[in-house]
Amino acid sequence: MTFSINLTDEEKQIVDDLASGKLSFRKADSVSENPERAALLRRLALEKMKNTDLSDLSYFSFDCSQVSKKNIENLVGAVQVPLGIAGPLSISGEFAKGEYHIPLATTEGALVASVNRGCSAITKSGGTTVRIFKNMMTRAPLFKLKSVGEAHRFYNWLTLPETFEKIKTVAENTTRFGKLHSAEPFISGTSVHLRLGFDTKDAMGMNMITIATEAVTQMIEKETGISCLTLSGNMCTDKKPTALNAALGRGKTVVAETLIPKEIIEQTFKCTADSMFQVNYEKNLLGTIRAGGLGFNAHAANIVAALFIACGQDPAHVVEGSLTITQMDLTEDGGLLCTVTMPAVEVGTIGGGTSISSQKACLSILGVSGSSEIPGENSSKLSEIVAASVLAGEISLIGAQAAGHLARAHATLGR
Amino acid sequence: MTFSINLTDEEKQIVDDLASGKLSFRKADSVSENPERAALLRRLALEKMKNTDLSDLSYFSFDCSQVSKKNIENLVGAVQVPLGIAGPLSISGEFAKGEYHIPLATTEGALVASVNRGCSAITKSGGTTVRIFKNMMTRAPLFKLKSVGEAHRFYNWLTLPETFEKIKTVAENTTRFGKLHSAEPFISGTSVHLRLGFDTKDAMGMNMITIATEAVTQMIEKETGISCLTLSGNMCTDKKPTALNAALGRGKTVVAETLIPKEIIEQTFKCTADSMFQVNYEKNLLGTIRAGGLGFNAHAANIVAALFIACGQDPAHVVEGSLTITQMDLTEDGGLLCTVTMPAVEVGTIGGGTSISSQKACLSILGVSGSSEIPGENSSKLSEIVAASVLAGEISLIGAQAAGHLARAHATLGR
Amino acid sequence: MTFSINLTDEEKQIVDDLASGKLSFRKADSVSENPERAALLRRLALEKMKNTDLSDLSYFSFDCSQVSKKNIENLVGAVQVPLGIAGPLSISGEFAKGEYHIPLATTEGALVASVNRGCSAITKSGGTTVRIFKNMMTRAPLFKLKSVGEAHRFYNWLTLPETFEKIKTVAENTTRFGKLHSAEPFISGTSVHLRLGFDTKDAMGMNMITIATEAVTQMIEKETGISCLTLSGNMCTDKKPTALNAALGRGKTVVAETLIPKEIIEQTFKCTADSMFQVNYEKNLLGTIRAGGLGFNAHAANIVAALFIACGQDPAHVVEGSLTITQMDLTEDGGLLCTVTMPAVEVGTIGGGTSISSQKACLSILGVSGSSEIPGENSSKLSEIVAASVLAGEISLIGAQAAGHLARAHATLGR
Amino acid sequence: MTFSINLTDEEKQIVDDLASGKLSFRKADSVSENPERAALLRRLALEKMKNTDLSDLSYFSFDCSQVSKKNIENLVGAVQVPLGIAGPLSISGEFAKGEYHIPLATTEGALVASVNRGCSAITKSGGTTVRIFKNMMTRAPLFKLKSVGEAHRFYNWLTLPETFEKIKTVAENTTRFGKLHSAEPFISGTSVHLRLGFDTKDAMGMNMITIATEAVTQMIEKETGISCLTLSGNMCTDKKPTALNAALGRGKTVVAETLIPKEIIEQTFKCTADSMFQVNYEKNLLGTIRAGGLGFNAHAANIVAALFIACGQDPAHVVEGSLTITQMDLTEDGGLLCTVTMPAVEVGTIGGGTSISSQKACLSILGVSGSSEIPGENSSKLSEIVAASVLAGEISLIGAQAAGHLARAHATLGR
Repeated sequence: MTFSINLTDEEKQIVDDLASGKLSFRKADSVSENPERAALLRRLALEKMKNTDLSDLSYFSFDCSQVSKKNIENLVGAVQVPLGIAGPLSISGEFAKGEYHIPLATTEGALVASVNRGCSAITKSGGTTVRIFKNMMTRAPLFKLKSVGEAHRFYNWLTLPETFEKIKTVAENTTRFGKLHSAEPFISGTSVHLRLGFDTKDAMGMNMITIATEAVTQMIEKETGISCLTLSGNMCTDKKPTALNAALGRGKTVVAETLIPKEIIEQTFKCTADSMFQVNYEKNLLGTIRAGGLGFNAHAANIVAALFIACGQDPAHVVEGSLTITQMDLTEDGGLLCTVTMPAVEVGTIGGGTSISSQKACLSILGVSGSSEIPGENSSKLSEIVAASVLAGEISLIGAQAAGHLARAHATLGR
Repeated sequence: MTFSINLTDEEKQIVDDLASGKLSFRKADSVSENPERAALLRRLALEKMKNTDLSDLSYFSFDCSQVSKKNIENLVGAVQVPLGIAGPLSISGEFAKGEYHIPLATTEGALVASVNRGCSAITKSGGTTVRIFKNMMTRAPLFKLKSVGEAHRFYNWLTLPETFEKIKTVAENTTRFGKLHSAEPFISGTSVHLRLGFDTKDAMGMNMITIATEAVTQMIEKETGISCLTLSGNMCTDKKPTALNAALGRGKTVVAETLIPKEIIEQTFKCTADSMFQVNYEKNLLGTIRAGGLGFNAHAANIVAALFIACGQDPAHVVEGSLTITQMDLTEDGGLLCTVTMPAVEVGTIGGGTSISSQKACLSILGVSGSSEIPGENSSKLSEIVAASVLAGEISLIGAQAAGHLARAHATLGR
Repeated sequence: MTFSINLTDEEKQIVDDLASGKLSFRKADSVSENPERAALLRRLALEKMKNTDLSDLSYFSFDCSQVSKKNIENLVGAVQVPLGIAGPLSISGEFAKGEYHIPLATTEGALVASVNRGCSAITKSGGTTVRIFKNMMTRAPLFKLKSVGEAHRFYNWLTLPETFEKIKTVAENTTRFGKLHSAEPFISGTSVHLRLGFDTKDAMGMNMITIATEAVTQMIEKETGISCLTLSGNMCTDKKPTALNAALGRGKTVVAETLIPKEIIEQTFKCTADSMFQVNYEKNLLGTIRAGGLGFNAHAANIVAALFIACGQDPAHVVEGSLTITQMDLTEDGGLLCTVTMPAVEVGTIGGGTSISSQKACLSILGVSGSSEIPGENSSKLSEIVAASVLAGEISLIGAQAAGHLARAHATLGR
Repeated sequence: MTFSINLTDEEKQIVDDLASGKLSFRKADSVSENPERAALLRRLALEKMKNTDLSDLSYFSFDCSQVSKKNIENLVGAVQVPLGIAGPLSISGEFAKGEYHIPLATTEGALVASVNRGCSAITKSGGTTVRIFKNMMTRAPLFKLKSVGEAHRFYNWLTLPETFEKIKTVAENTTRFGKLHSAEPFISGTSVHLRLGFDTKDAMGMNMITIATEAVTQMIEKETGISCLTLSGNMCTDKKPTALNAALGRGKTVVAETLIPKEIIEQTFKCTADSMFQVNYEKNLLGTIRAGGLGFNAHAANIVAALFIACGQDPAHVVEGSLTITQMDLTEDGGLLCTVTMPAVEVGTIGGGTSISSQKACLSILGVSGSSEIPGENSSKLSEIVAASVLAGEISLIGAQAAGHLARAHATLGR
């Protein structure tokens, strides 16, 4: 990717106008030859304004036209996030089957090494079994009523089977793939939240269901005369940590499990199953309990963040990833039965950042790029890989803490 | 960045061995000429194994030696995250003063545009005032006692002023910049958590204080004979959503405020102050309450994620960012007093991903790259910019929802 | 109630043996003439052991035989809780219709006066409208599986319609009145919780559904070979504050509403609607948010406790009462629309303490003693009265805080 | 207690006027001869209005004058709560030392028997060790500022040592016994909460510290011109379940511990240590985690409620009692180390309901009635007894669930 920095006079003027504020960054698109030039001009203007060299932002291979249309506005270039590989990780899911190499985009030293060690322990132990228990992307519009009496009638109407059918029809008319599975009302004073649950197949689905939800609210407004205050009243819940998501799930609810024998624990982690049990119990369960938390894990967010950035997922969904519950239970023969319960894995293999070139490459490492023949298989596979990877990360960090070398690892690798 | 892909015979052999699994990815570093070649060989091996083209991962300008040492293991290349610019955003902080252009790395269409609109409304309204209320990075090791009696004696010892002095001395001996400000014990059955709070100056500081904490635990173990089960018992709390962090803060506790007049609301958001108040109240406060959540905002995580990825911050700290409380209160003259309270902004301008070339460029756009003359000023400035940007994002999304065009915005820009 | 304290020689010996510990308190029943004498002998023994006068425990009118069988063991007498009356409170529910006098058993000075003032404001404002949104008592047994694969099969089996029918049949065979409405599984590692929801008519229903649940678990164990670890795995959730109860409800989910005009606020509370709005907003919503809480009210627990003790309800269910959300919203004409949303009101008019003489008297004041002609009407009525009373208490305390005289009220009335 | 029901003509008229609503219940005091007569007249009026016999409310021995002044308004009589005795319970606290008989006022069949069984297991195992880790009753007034800048200056002023001294002086001038130990500010938008922590000696202390807090707020208002919106902004937190109370404590933070040998478990509970560990782990920890809860116990609220009602404590503080964390850990020789961690035990032996005759009798059974020679000893003792009793209740119920006979116990004893 090599911008020609030979500017036309007109372009030079644009840069000056952007730098002086006469022209807003937003306007650069309409006055430039193409999105790529617009990005360049913005970057040069910024360099001028901030008196700094920003050429490091110019290393990318994606198509600016596409990205400008679908992924970003006021494009100036790209940030390069270093990509490392952990694995192989042996997974036995319903969808993901075999050995996987996990692409992790991160700047946190020791993270890839840590996940890698977990992958190794799991794979040596025979792999991880993964299952999806729920699959339901949610959006919850909020309706404002005038009185509790009116709210009661509305709430009751929403629970009628025929209302559900109407909602389903309207919602599914807006989408080729999405299927509505549930519509649950919640009362709050004189307001009613309606939590709609969809199977969004290979898409993560937020945009799909926002559009579907808007159609549903319009139908409801028309049918009842009741007004929708907002398409999302936070009972969805998107990108905020809530017990509702933790309990009921959002996106896919996935559990990954592995049984690590005594010897592999001792070899790999230089500690005992019992010490890992102790650390997990006192830290991940009791420690988070004592902190009044919703995330009962060591560092699930780290793995989710690195994997999501690599694979073009929404990194703000790291919040939901942090709801993971990690369990480690002693077995009779001195091994450790480890599970991670991830209530809300929101992933897709089409849409969002998944079609950007480098992200697409990462998905292709996992064999899940784009839509699958049977719609939904690729995103299901990806969710299983996410849970398996988080399991690897959890085992490794708990092992490290049990062996007492967290600080040293950071001192050596992490700076 | 131009890999020569002319491989020596030896390198060809390494690629084959990596692809066949004979050589682990981890070992590639030691058998390659340099980290850059090692990254190339791993990438080529992956291409072979997965039968896919990964050349899109080869666009980067960072120094592989440096990155391999500090930021990542098993490097194979880079993921390109599109970077957009929002702003200018007028900030009146104690540290950040003036107009800022906010670098946002994201793949979520409409996000930059949304923040940009918020910046515009804020700047037109005279800017945002930002203040830091607390500054305390925390690590909480966990000590396991044999009985409640022993725990009681230990707990009481920990609360002695002379114990605090010992802890402070030992901790600060491990670091040139870090200062220990607090050491608070928490009882849990027969375990004691000790929450250590540090000012880590321009570093985000997790590594710095992990090392300091290890020294403290060794001193305590030696002095008391009581054993430290783990350096982190989850009362820190790192990367998990907890009420403890929300209440007591972690990193910097920052509040940003702006007062938007009636006219600017109407002009910018095509709605009224009252409708924005209603949406914020019913959604961000009551909606999250009803969902049993810890994050009382619309999409703070989005802005934190985009800014953190751009600026080389830890994206898993998005979890803490999601604890933001957004308030919008009506003023007597029809305006809206908007604030975001961010209890836990964990940022640094040195260490972590901040020295990677493209991330460093983003920090330089904000004028906060590297360490500041008075240590801590740059990270403080960055934390103020984070809160100001989140405020812009919140106002804009609530405005959009109040005006009822969320779905349409997504339909047009986001797909 | 006048115990004859003329003891027989045998009784004297029993008292001595109880006092010396030779005879356990539990055994007193079998060696005494009747439960009333047993209670007396225990009391006398305690007096001897503790060298204190306990005659104040002997004032009661209940039937010791009945109480010893159903309500208590090792009976020694009764505690007298002072009973005050608030009201009249005008209620317009689906079940409760008319003016009610609220019996409150409490020792907290100023509480009855405060509720009374709230009743007065509500009644003057035209009363309170109350509606029940959900009615579902829950018990959630916990099944322990050997692996995530097995858990997945079991979970899927539980979601089959035919499994639900089996569960329903078995459950309803154990009870004359109870109806099973839902059976929702939750995965947690390799465990599965099954949350069963019942309509228990006029009984609070915990015992009824515990028995039903035991039958269900036996059927499941027999049918699947999977073992039930415990009849309650805390997802019920009984007497612990959980977001699950707050979101999904337990017992009855009830909302009470009143619209207080400007003048009545000023007259009754010596403050303005706006100041009450402010206090409710900053305290009940934002204050609890900042404290990481699940109860968004001022003192709902006070009213629930006093009413539950008076009416023979389970006072430990005060925990669920504390989950109340109180809202106060300004109306266009300067009034205040006040609601309380109580997600979990667990009440009954038969069973538990409802048949004890003084408690029965309190229920009769409310016109809800015993079972109703249409089963469930009395308990529904009682739940509406609970919500209406809590609303009265909330309005009054917020009014008092708005007027700034909380401390003075306590100083005068409360000591 | 023997009301003469021979009414004077004047009294008959009062009854008629009360019944018709001409005279409010509140006014009955001023027109009656004394509070006892007023109570009688109200009761008779209620009987007339509701056409029911309320004579069962007339069994009490307390002094109506005293109770009417300090504990209740609109007195009509008393509710009789059956009182049972569990124990002896061997306690080894710092304050409570020896064998105690626990008075439990309840209407829930099987509760006393269950606690009794727990007491027996503990006492046979050598008793329970109890320690108090924190002692701090809290009140948190809320100050409303105009801007974040003003809030920042105010917050900083509050953290000055000299401000603390002023606050301490003003607070302690209002009380003979109370001592202020901490004053911690929390920012929330443009509001500041100030959490004041007191040692209230033998009083539970809510009234004491509310008065002290009012004085503090007046001083602050005078000194700074900043207005206090409410004496309690819910960060206290009183009678609402909050993570803040769970983490930082309120009233007394107490841990009780016992080590039950293998044999005693088998004998008493007909199950194994391992099965009790399993149930506690899966139910009290993981179950509540999965339910998004703040109470990690089986039924702590039951014991707290029964003990608090018996002893004249505030039954709404059951909410705080429900925050208990119960742990059961296997020991190497097959025993079970059990603890309950109660972060917030709010008790007193003077004030509130503690001077009512029957409640005073219950306190005297425990040897903690009234104030102690060294102020604070009696309330400390009582808090240790509470924790010990809760431990007994927890062990017993977990034992019962482990042995699978919860339902049968209820079927037999509970109705």
